[in-house]
Amino acid sequence: MGRLIAVAGPTGALEAIRTGEPPPGVDAHRTAPRLDRWRIRLSAADPDADQAIREHLNIRLVCPGDPEWPTTLDDLGDERPYALWLRGPEDLRYACLRSVAIVGSRAASPYGLRVAADMACELAEQRWTVISGGALGIDAAAHRGALAADGPTVAVFANGVDVPYPASNDGLFAEMARRALLVGETPPGTEPNRLRFLVRNRVIAALSRGTVVVEAARRSGALGTAAWARKLGRVVMAVPGPVHSHSSVGCHKLLREEPPATLITRSEEVIEAVGPIGALAPEPGAPVLPRDNLDPTIRAVLEALPSRGGTGPAQIAVKAGLDLGTVNGKLGLLAAAGFVERAPTGWRLTKQARK
Amino acid sequence: MGRLIAVAGPTGALEAIRTGEPPPGVDAHRTAPRLDRWRIRLSAADPDADQAIREHLNIRLVCPGDPEWPTTLDDLGDERPYALWLRGPEDLRYACLRSVAIVGSRAASPYGLRVAADMACELAEQRWTVISGGALGIDAAAHRGALAADGPTVAVFANGVDVPYPASNDGLFAEMARRALLVGETPPGTEPNRLRFLVRNRVIAALSRGTVVVEAARRSGALGTAAWARKLGRVVMAVPGPVHSHSSVGCHKLLREEPPATLITRSEEVIEAVGPIGALAPEPGAPVLPRDNLDPTIRAVLEALPSRGGTGPAQIAVKAGLDLGTVNGKLGLLAAAGFVERAPTGWRLTKQARK
Repeated sequence: MGRLIAVAGPTGALEAIRTGEPPPGVDAHRTAPRLDRWRIRLSAADPDADQAIREHLNIRLVCPGDPEWPTTLDDLGDERPYALWLRGPEDLRYACLRSVAIVGSRAASPYGLRVAADMACELAEQRWTVISGGALGIDAAAHRGALAADGPTVAVFANGVDVPYPASNDGLFAEMARRALLVGETPPGTEPNRLRFLVRNRVIAALSRGTVVVEAARRSGALGTAAWARKLGRVVMAVPGPVHSHSSVGCHKLLREEPPATLITRSEEVIEAVGPIGALAPEPGAPVLPRDNLDPTIRAVLEALPSRGGTGPAQIAVKAGLDLGTVNGKLGLLAAAGFVERAPTGWRLTKQARK
Repeated sequence: MGRLIAVAGPTGALEAIRTGEPPPGVDAHRTAPRLDRWRIRLSAADPDADQAIREHLNIRLVCPGDPEWPTTLDDLGDERPYALWLRGPEDLRYACLRSVAIVGSRAASPYGLRVAADMACELAEQRWTVISGGALGIDAAAHRGALAADGPTVAVFANGVDVPYPASNDGLFAEMARRALLVGETPPGTEPNRLRFLVRNRVIAALSRGTVVVEAARRSGALGTAAWARKLGRVVMAVPGPVHSHSSVGCHKLLREEPPATLITRSEEVIEAVGPIGALAPEPGAPVLPRDNLDPTIRAVLEALPSRGGTGPAQIAVKAGLDLGTVNGKLGLLAAAGFVERAPTGWRLTKQARK
């Protein structure tokens, strides 16, 4: 499907599925039977119902090329998602610019849960976004730790963003829909299955600048996320534990690989490993993102900052014609993206953004 | 002193100390004041008393070139000990051919003590000699673990081999003098001091094929042993622990260094890291040690083995004219040195020893 969309575009792909005619540029022999299967699934799709759920739950759909689409996903090549369903106030692209995945076992030990929550909380305090999979155990502890610091956190689901799975994380997901971000590759209403968990892991790895495995048993799915992170050139990190603990066997395996994962004992070491925000700039002197790609509200905040010196959020709000809450939120995103910084004189443009 | 002995030999060095005349080949300006200091210390030496203690406690003194001198110590260059005082039935050279140092904090946690004892016990079961420093905590646990498996273990003291320091390890040292080996660089009766602990660590690192740090606080002396091991090209290994444990901070530091220490969770990984006995052979096809260097009893056992096929210890004992206990002990040493191996048909010469 990735190849089909790459060759024919989304509309051309839909047309090919409807007609059963493989477009030029794809392997017709391999594609034809798949088109038949996809046509059956297409007949079960109900875009109007999806649209109604989207509007009701305030879910948005972002596609490659949209301002909120994280370009880091392009590293997945043909395995890039076609689109992502989002639920929650965080901006996915900005949130992921400065993000770390914290993942691990569902059956975590009290030790692992504590490490995950503390590490996520400290990273969130430093305005690093904590990405995880919304599962029981380490994942939930990481999301909760980030929320405790009132920091950004992103849960990437193997199901629809309106499906509270696992059910016992229901309250966490409701909170994240209100204050953070839920991400799904499949439409609302989709139930998780084993395959979806596996493919979901590549999205967690690709969105973040590095993956920390806090606890993992020998065959934990978290090791799959780590393998994706390695394949994508992201930093692979692991937290050690007692050698007798089954929950740390997978982490110790990562630390004994060649090359070994980076051993992590505290949040500062994570930040050291994934590098400062400056490392994000693709070219020296170039802004992190072109201003033209910014959404209009973010751009209004950016343009309300004086070219020299600092200013307070209230003055920015007046100048941009926005309320103070919106301004504070957008300033956080702009800071994460490297456009603005907090100085003793207030918020100001970074050296990079002034150029 | 190392330089002086290297240039003038032990007798020449003694002569230089007595006369105060630096021999040709040493820096006269730097050596002359040292000769004066050593002359004062020489006047306090009482070789006759040392000799009496030696005989009384069955202590032996080995020097470079003696059959029992471990040639691995030559890697220390000018910092090689001039001689070692030994107490106990193990043969130092053979014991160290297939040896690992297990070191760590005095103030160890129950976790660290358990790991050290288990690992030493398992290594000893595989006839690996466990070398440590005889200190409280990890060191003592390692020695005790090896003794529990009735395996070889060597304690390298920062004091005389007749000085039970620390006093609470008195029983352990008595047991090791009876069944294993105590090693000291200083004459009987010498008390330990801070400097002696530091210089002792180089001997532990040099004698063994690798050093495992089981637990170490941020400034533990065990990290000094690891640094010596690295400097000498030995394998540096560290056991992970909970990230909040102060006793594991030093281990995690070693695991985060560049290049990192090898992370160890069980004894098999130690053996994998330091390599099989075959790796000891300096040249392919050459015996591990020339037979001429073997002590007469060991040689008698070796020569009692048939040139082809295997045989039992009792037959060897009869043929060599030795008691069964001696034969069993010497077979262990010969196995450690790569001359013999245990086969379904009994003990037999290795391929290497047959050449």
